[in-house]
Amino acid sequence: MVKSHLESKARTTRSPIPFDLFFNPRAVAILGVNESPYGGTYFLDILAKNDFPNPMYPVNPKLAGKKLLGYKVYESIGSLPDDPPIDLAIIAVPAKYTPGIIKELGEKGIPFAHIFSSGYSEVGSSTLEQELLDNARKYGVRIIGPNCVGGYNPRSRLAFTEGTSNVAGDVGFISQSGGNAIRLAYNGPTRGYYFSKAVSAGNQVDVDIVDFLAYFKDDPETRIIAMYIENVKQQGTRFIELLQETTSEKPVVIWKGGSSERGHSAVMSHTGGLAGNHRIWKGLAKQTGAILVDNFKELTETVQALSFYPLPKTRKVAIITAGGWLSVEGTDNCEKHGLVVPCVSKETQELMNKFVPPVNTNITNPFDLGAIGLGTEAFGQTVKILEGEPDISSIIMTHAPEKFADYAIAFKTDDFEGELIQNIVKAKPKDKLVISLPVLLQENMESVQARERFAKKLQEHKIMCFRSFGSAARCIKRIWEYHEFLESHK
Amino acid sequence: MVKSHLESKARTTRSPIPFDLFFNPRAVAILGVNESPYGGTYFLDILAKNDFPNPMYPVNPKLAGKKLLGYKVYESIGSLPDDPPIDLAIIAVPAKYTPGIIKELGEKGIPFAHIFSSGYSEVGSSTLEQELLDNARKYGVRIIGPNCVGGYNPRSRLAFTEGTSNVAGDVGFISQSGGNAIRLAYNGPTRGYYFSKAVSAGNQVDVDIVDFLAYFKDDPETRIIAMYIENVKQQGTRFIELLQETTSEKPVVIWKGGSSERGHSAVMSHTGGLAGNHRIWKGLAKQTGAILVDNFKELTETVQALSFYPLPKTRKVAIITAGGWLSVEGTDNCEKHGLVVPCVSKETQELMNKFVPPVNTNITNPFDLGAIGLGTEAFGQTVKILEGEPDISSIIMTHAPEKFADYAIAFKTDDFEGELIQNIVKAKPKDKLVISLPVLLQENMESVQARERFAKKLQEHKIMCFRSFGSAARCIKRIWEYHEFLESHK
Repeated sequence: MVKSHLESKARTTRSPIPFDLFFNPRAVAILGVNESPYGGTYFLDILAKNDFPNPMYPVNPKLAGKKLLGYKVYESIGSLPDDPPIDLAIIAVPAKYTPGIIKELGEKGIPFAHIFSSGYSEVGSSTLEQELLDNARKYGVRIIGPNCVGGYNPRSRLAFTEGTSNVAGDVGFISQSGGNAIRLAYNGPTRGYYFSKAVSAGNQVDVDIVDFLAYFKDDPETRIIAMYIENVKQQGTRFIELLQETTSEKPVVIWKGGSSERGHSAVMSHTGGLAGNHRIWKGLAKQTGAILVDNFKELTETVQALSFYPLPKTRKVAIITAGGWLSVEGTDNCEKHGLVVPCVSKETQELMNKFVPPVNTNITNPFDLGAIGLGTEAFGQTVKILEGEPDISSIIMTHAPEKFADYAIAFKTDDFEGELIQNIVKAKPKDKLVISLPVLLQENMESVQARERFAKKLQEHKIMCFRSFGSAARCIKRIWEYHEFLESHK
Repeated sequence: MVKSHLESKARTTRSPIPFDLFFNPRAVAILGVNESPYGGTYFLDILAKNDFPNPMYPVNPKLAGKKLLGYKVYESIGSLPDDPPIDLAIIAVPAKYTPGIIKELGEKGIPFAHIFSSGYSEVGSSTLEQELLDNARKYGVRIIGPNCVGGYNPRSRLAFTEGTSNVAGDVGFISQSGGNAIRLAYNGPTRGYYFSKAVSAGNQVDVDIVDFLAYFKDDPETRIIAMYIENVKQQGTRFIELLQETTSEKPVVIWKGGSSERGHSAVMSHTGGLAGNHRIWKGLAKQTGAILVDNFKELTETVQALSFYPLPKTRKVAIITAGGWLSVEGTDNCEKHGLVVPCVSKETQELMNKFVPPVNTNITNPFDLGAIGLGTEAFGQTVKILEGEPDISSIIMTHAPEKFADYAIAFKTDDFEGELIQNIVKAKPKDKLVISLPVLLQENMESVQARERFAKKLQEHKIMCFRSFGSAARCIKRIWEYHEFLESHK
């Protein structure tokens, strides 16, 4: 196996893999279809529902000539039409049959096999993986997987699960885990960012996450790269070099799974690999400029921030609240997570003094607007004034969406929420990260709904809503560190 | 001021303050009422709406003889009825008049003044506070505040904001901040725990949080004590002694606000005090057994956990998921936050093997149930089997509530959610913390609603739902440390 991996390395270093064919297949063969809705039939179904426009050929000798979901079933790979060329085979047959299928694909000239089937090294059996790889080399087929859900491309309508967005974006996601690939593919669009392409790499018997990184690095449709990595099986040196080359052009956010001792053992049974130590990954991130995150929430928040905002030039932040309790909590949590909440200039304080009353308020930063902060104007006014503080790169505001209905009555307006948002949006400086923290007093359904509605509306204006000061601060800090890396490597 | 504080210390150390009168006033005088809905009128309004059963006397010479919200307005404190005795005056007049009012209260024999008014040391003026204190001492009145919202007692229907629950519970909350007092009072009941009493202490010119701690320590209605502290103004030594005495009987959860450098300065303008260093508070917590938390979410989660569960005897945890991606994320985040995810015994593994298929699963802990984890039974079965692992004190399960509607169809059941919950509840061992983590793929309104509904249903069975593995792990770790403290101080 070691020898083959070295061969693989040499090979992939020489010439880039034509992943454009994988992500934009002109025709697709699907193996492992039957009358149950699972396995290959599942992929046929989701591609059909997703209006995948190119030919799809289900293959099963037992069902040959019949129709499945309206598609003619073929007897064998050899019997499939040649025009347009089949660029991808999706394989969901029992693991033991897969090496033989790779041979047939090669003979037919199909360049990519996505193997969905599991039952390889993740259950302790690596012989099959060796056979797969041997045949892949021998017959010139590149394998994605096994034990993975494959690729997603909103432009070509390739999909790895049902109901994903077909809005094309600029986030490329490489995930070793199918579960996390699907999770981010669903999550991104609900947060207002979209994908160029995404892929799950599974057990990486042949093609690995490093190969995909090389592709995304040069892919003009991809501006931000996100990765979920459990282990780098091969090409370690190339991975580090590639990361260094990539981060100077595009941010790379890495969530490393399995960095704890037992998490490591969970990886073994998940995608069959050995996970590395967390400290090694921290060092690697520091050296390469990759942005390392700890969990799914941080991954999606960081990608969203990179998608919505410019990089913060400083780690200085302004906090705007209506209530001293929140300004204290905000300042503590921002400073705890490495941000700075500086006292603002005399000029700014004087401008604030013009409209903020003296009692139960604070105009030095953190800003506590007191009772006037409950109106629709004071937040926007403060954001506007902060244009005069070039050193402050981020502004975190707290809001109380569950109270907006009451405030609408108190302030005699029909659309309190809309006015508040408009005033902030009008004032928002282009070079600052303007962020909201909708704080709930109650955590009942009505309050949560009010928060979600408000968050979605702000999102339309590229204003992110976090759920805690700590999350906001961690996210700002991480992308500020990336800015610092770029500055120091100019 | 120093002298008076020392006097105050000597005094409060000698005899306990009769806070039962403050929390259960037989009659209440309200000063600072007028035709606007704010100030004293607000308190009159919320107590009336809350069906406060005892007499309430609004006082305002300009409105004397008129009615306000149906209550007769009195000319002066001196003219108020004497029977039943007035135990509490709520004061919302401009700060400069408050020292004079304390004199009148003393002459009338009213023992407690809750001063809502602000404009004292938090805006840099401490002369008024000194006058207040001098008169309090001279005329025998105890002052809560100023700059605070006062007390809340579901049993007596005393309230500090509108719409709080009147279900009586066993959590006592002492908050220096009115905002945080109100926030927890609303938040607790939506999380399924309730209050014995709560109070905000504000600028603590006379009565302080240490006095309230002494009261809650001996209060038979209070089993769990929560505190939000910005600063301990006086009685520092007594505070430490009291904490030590209290934690051996009741857990004390402390959220210390203003522990960062600038948070500190935010405290100055919030409640007019000097905040202490975070490291000092960590040391104090370690020495006294207090449970220190960093923000509001951790405060309410910790109180909820203490309210729902026994203390965990170990920091060993089992993780049950349906998906390798989640078992890796869970294990990483639990270990990162100081928990242990041990491999389970051969016996447990054999029991698991009986119903969990071999591919795409893990039965050693973290448990990845694979596809059978999508049914209604496998989680309950696993929880049941874990009864045989006495060393594992906590069980964290992940669920996918947004998918329950699909699963109901796939598994042909009308009430997937209900069956799943029932199976877990039936299996739940009494001595373990059984916790759920509802994971969302999408973060749209429908998914969030599904999560909230599921969380509320689990909560009825005293099963907590966290939003991240990290939050769950931090919470378990903190209350396990309290268990360790108790064990080592037996």
